[in-house]
Amino acid sequence: MKAYSQLTLAERQEAYAILQARYEHYRSLGLNLNMARGKPGVQQLELSAPMLDLLTIDNCKVDGIDARNYGELTGLPCAKKLFAELLGTKPEEILVGGNASLTLMYDLIAKAYTHGLLHSPRPWAKEETVKFLCPSPGYDRHFKITENFGMELITVAMTENGPDMDAVEEAVKDPTVKGMWCVPKYSNPDGIIYSEETIDRIANLKPAAPDFALMWDNAYCVHEVYGEFRPFRDILTPCREAGNPDMVYEFASTSKITFPGAGVAVMAASVENQKYITSLLAFQSISYDKMNQLRHVLFLKDKETVLALMQEHAKILRPRFSAVLDALEEQIAPLDIAKWEKPLGGYFVSFNAMEGTAKRALALCKEAGVVMTGAGATFPYGKDPKDSNIRIAPSLPPVEELKQAMDIFCICVQMAALEKLGL
Amino acid sequence: MKAYSQLTLAERQEAYAILQARYEHYRSLGLNLNMARGKPGVQQLELSAPMLDLLTIDNCKVDGIDARNYGELTGLPCAKKLFAELLGTKPEEILVGGNASLTLMYDLIAKAYTHGLLHSPRPWAKEETVKFLCPSPGYDRHFKITENFGMELITVAMTENGPDMDAVEEAVKDPTVKGMWCVPKYSNPDGIIYSEETIDRIANLKPAAPDFALMWDNAYCVHEVYGEFRPFRDILTPCREAGNPDMVYEFASTSKITFPGAGVAVMAASVENQKYITSLLAFQSISYDKMNQLRHVLFLKDKETVLALMQEHAKILRPRFSAVLDALEEQIAPLDIAKWEKPLGGYFVSFNAMEGTAKRALALCKEAGVVMTGAGATFPYGKDPKDSNIRIAPSLPPVEELKQAMDIFCICVQMAALEKLGL
Repeated sequence: MKAYSQLTLAERQEAYAILQARYEHYRSLGLNLNMARGKPGVQQLELSAPMLDLLTIDNCKVDGIDARNYGELTGLPCAKKLFAELLGTKPEEILVGGNASLTLMYDLIAKAYTHGLLHSPRPWAKEETVKFLCPSPGYDRHFKITENFGMELITVAMTENGPDMDAVEEAVKDPTVKGMWCVPKYSNPDGIIYSEETIDRIANLKPAAPDFALMWDNAYCVHEVYGEFRPFRDILTPCREAGNPDMVYEFASTSKITFPGAGVAVMAASVENQKYITSLLAFQSISYDKMNQLRHVLFLKDKETVLALMQEHAKILRPRFSAVLDALEEQIAPLDIAKWEKPLGGYFVSFNAMEGTAKRALALCKEAGVVMTGAGATFPYGKDPKDSNIRIAPSLPPVEELKQAMDIFCICVQMAALEKLGL
Repeated sequence: MKAYSQLTLAERQEAYAILQARYEHYRSLGLNLNMARGKPGVQQLELSAPMLDLLTIDNCKVDGIDARNYGELTGLPCAKKLFAELLGTKPEEILVGGNASLTLMYDLIAKAYTHGLLHSPRPWAKEETVKFLCPSPGYDRHFKITENFGMELITVAMTENGPDMDAVEEAVKDPTVKGMWCVPKYSNPDGIIYSEETIDRIANLKPAAPDFALMWDNAYCVHEVYGEFRPFRDILTPCREAGNPDMVYEFASTSKITFPGAGVAVMAASVENQKYITSLLAFQSISYDKMNQLRHVLFLKDKETVLALMQEHAKILRPRFSAVLDALEEQIAPLDIAKWEKPLGGYFVSFNAMEGTAKRALALCKEAGVVMTGAGATFPYGKDPKDSNIRIAPSLPPVEELKQAMDIFCICVQMAALEKLGL
């Protein structure tokens, strides 16, 4: 195998013909393979089976609170304690919410829009312009929340250490820049871990907007795939030490620890922020589902138990990630047409195809029955300026299906590259 | 006992002295009794104990959907079917949400504010003025949602048949009137059932606002206290027949059927409305907790099973309602100083004290350790123009405590009346 850039026209045509034959064979099989979303597979779901019948009539009262009844808007104290231990914050900095951190994030942005945040001079709806920083590639659902409220999405490049901090520090001088989306550990999709320096620079930002919201989605805080748990700094402390105690809102959930559709989500923030947000949340909710909080506390117990469970998840995920990485290494690496990250945790492999070929490659995939996250989804407005980034989600399919899907993916990436180079 | 209006000054003074002695005795006991909220008591919670371990690894897949995983934003089909049967709608008109109908209502109003409803010319945030009709006495949490979004709350009188429809029909001619709150069966707090004629007139409203939102909170749809289930018309059908298919949003939940903090909430609305709202909800949530939906379907099964369970609730609630009504009948009725409803279902007894005495009576209650919903709470902005209505919630305390609390309440109501009449 030679790098594609070294091939003559005739060699490209020959290579394309061979790929096309393999492609047509796969297409004739009428496959239906899905690598679109970071959805845990069924083996992972079964790890949490013991949680199903943990609650009894005798244990659903805790700390003097009946988890079955109304009340305790900010969550059960025992649940706050568990999540504070996991995130390295204080229990009083934790709000335990419903089944989705996405909803907590949406609700925070929605409240910024309708009522303003703690230090907002006015609701964001009353501002001429609101801009939001979107380190990209990033998480499409993040970007869409802010887009949905009419905010202007500003792309910031991702580096191997996190967002390009020179660009961020420059951007926050604009008072209409009201916040930034971050996935600091095993970022979605790159799988990189923000460096110490990046975190320090983020905590020490001096945004012109008094109500700048650092949306710190620690979605993969305990989600190692290769190796043991990698400790990761709590973000509330450096923000507080930098004089920015109310700038940060950290999110996490058990969606990829227990059940994705029936987990528990949390928001960590300063006590002042919690007080303010709870005063607004009180109109929206009497309380979140404390039975599910308690079910989680009884099952997950403490950080040690959580980390042991996550190693079980890792055992299931590892062969899937390896199937993706091995296929890329074998079939794509020698051709020198793409780059990708080799993540140690999280849920994705971020693949950068030859510029201008991502859409075409995924269209070919779709034709052959392989569904991926749409090309461009990892950028604001769904538009990747280089038409290059593709997010691969290996968690859901069984390994054999995944190998087949990756074989098809590699064929499609190659075909798109050859088409681009000219046939 | 004579009517207070018949008493001489000396008789009033004498009566007051006797009451005061009884009051001081109670106060010295340092009681802590709560009749503030419609919170089910512990015996009621125990009726749903079998629900705790219904789910197993084998039954959490249904209709081809794994309830543990992400997806199915609008809810499990089997849950839609159950709630459609309960409310008399079609399954495709049902959205099954999270643990609280209050949250579904808030989210709908919030989306009207930020994005507009299906037929809105623009988001409500962009309107000069938005007014909302509040039949009163009504539910404080309803009123507060609309107040929280800066809407102007318009009080409409409640009659024994529901809202004063002459006033409503007149009010909706104003295009800035964008909606109305209703609790149509066992209304909060009056406990009345809207008459057929009222429902017809509501369904046939011709609001000037194209996006008028009828917020139909059917919170007590199967919540009889005395007697068998009273069938109640589905509201979507008459609205559709009247040419108003998209005017109505109906809400219900299992908060007072299973666990108040861990129930399942639904919104019924036209298919067109569901389509529009789901398109906005998709930014906020990937899916609600389908495990809890399934747990409810397995436990509640069908309407027949639900109605049988509600009769068990009624057995527990009946002595509590009777304790309230008996105390009022014995201690207050002969004095001719107050009026109250005798509800057949729901969660409240609505008590109208002598005008200008509700606040004083409740202040006295509080002093003696009896906590009630704040006077005025049942009116917009928490201001009862007559300072008369008091919402009594008999469900939570054990019967013996309730009797004691009602004894204190009756004393306080009498003392406040005597003070008002002059001592």
